[in-house]
Amino acid sequence: MFDLVENLGEGTVLPSERELAERFSVSRVTLRQAVSELVLEGKLIRRQGSGTFVAPPKLVQPLSLVSYTEGMRRQGVEPNRTVITVEELGADEGLARDLMIEPGDPVVHLERVLLADDERIGLESTYLSLARFPGLLEKLDPAGSLYACLTERLGVRFAEAEERVETVLATPREALLIGTNPALPMLLLHRVSYDVEGHPIERARSLYRGDRFSFVARLHADR
Amino acid sequence: MFDLVENLGEGTVLPSERELAERFSVSRVTLRQAVSELVLEGKLIRRQGSGTFVAPPKLVQPLSLVSYTEGMRRQGVEPNRTVITVEELGADEGLARDLMIEPGDPVVHLERVLLADDERIGLESTYLSLARFPGLLEKLDPAGSLYACLTERLGVRFAEAEERVETVLATPREALLIGTNPALPMLLLHRVSYDVEGHPIERARSLYRGDRFSFVARLHADR
Repeated sequence: MFDLVENLGEGTVLPSERELAERFSVSRVTLRQAVSELVLEGKLIRRQGSGTFVAPPKLVQPLSLVSYTEGMRRQGVEPNRTVITVEELGADEGLARDLMIEPGDPVVHLERVLLADDERIGLESTYLSLARFPGLLEKLDPAGSLYACLTERLGVRFAEAEERVETVLATPREALLIGTNPALPMLLLHRVSYDVEGHPIERARSLYRGDRFSFVARLHADR
Repeated sequence: MFDLVENLGEGTVLPSERELAERFSVSRVTLRQAVSELVLEGKLIRRQGSGTFVAPPKLVQPLSLVSYTEGMRRQGVEPNRTVITVEELGADEGLARDLMIEPGDPVVHLERVLLADDERIGLESTYLSLARFPGLLEKLDPAGSLYACLTERLGVRFAEAEERVETVLATPREALLIGTNPALPMLLLHRVSYDVEGHPIERARSLYRGDRFSFVARLHADR
């Protein structure tokens, strides 16, 4: 079944259930189960009305200081964002620790759906200290690249980041915003990035569709 | 529900379904659904006979040239392995390309279940060129650390690695070997590592339980 999918090539519509069940000498129940698993893994895409077809390869996001915007453009994919939330709030204890501010200090919270060539593929929540970036909300186009705004308009220089990757299931709200099935495994990336002086710039929580996304890193022995 | 789990603390047994449904004013069906999701995410562990309890935090594996063995020891966890397969076979095209050998050239394939404090948490499949490491099978204890054998007994120096992380569902065989539910999202790490001369050392495919594992990386702007 996996081989079949590999041989068919991107965009090919899958033959009928009956035909496939016969070809592999399996029951239609078994076949349906195999197809469902391949859909969850992103190897097949099912679309109402147009059947099931072979998915394009997963998008690859470098685990590096490169922003989502730049990571997508390198693959020839046009990145975009839909703004869900822009708000000012007081930092809780964990956030205050990560941003090296005091609990209750004002932060900007930016929540955006990430798009790749108009397809919804993730949800990103970013927190920045308002004391550190006063007037940020006036300077930032919330639908634009945050990294471009920080580096080009505010002169911030990214030097380091701590990232943690795990897999989780989307909550019902997240599944609704991204437009996926809540049973779909997601890649969750937690990041705190720092400037050349070692001051925290932002804390971000990025949720990516597990069926459409992978992360790559090139690691070196000498740091 | 998430808050409750956070407040209860590691190892606490969850109150009864009836008690929880009452406390949150939800139906028992809704409650059961919420508990199942927390189990899949690794926040709760369900064990036959002893009920459902709050899980310990996820293990953290550095995305670096540190081996599984060293990554676990740094967290005070004792790593171990159960050998599933040790075989010699001919490289297919993809493997030959990754290891910079010819298709059909002999490789050693090592497949091992990874244990952390005797708990099965992953499955690793590693391929090495036999021409590059002649007599590897005589020198290696298949249940021991491959990296320790390579560096200490064969004088290999790891310099770089290319890693790709994605999330997949375990196949029925993998779920059986790791002892998990096939619906459990897994973290899949593909790695090719290179020595100081830029020659490939090994290609590995490591599957880790998504409910028990996360990866961390510390990234720098200067390479």
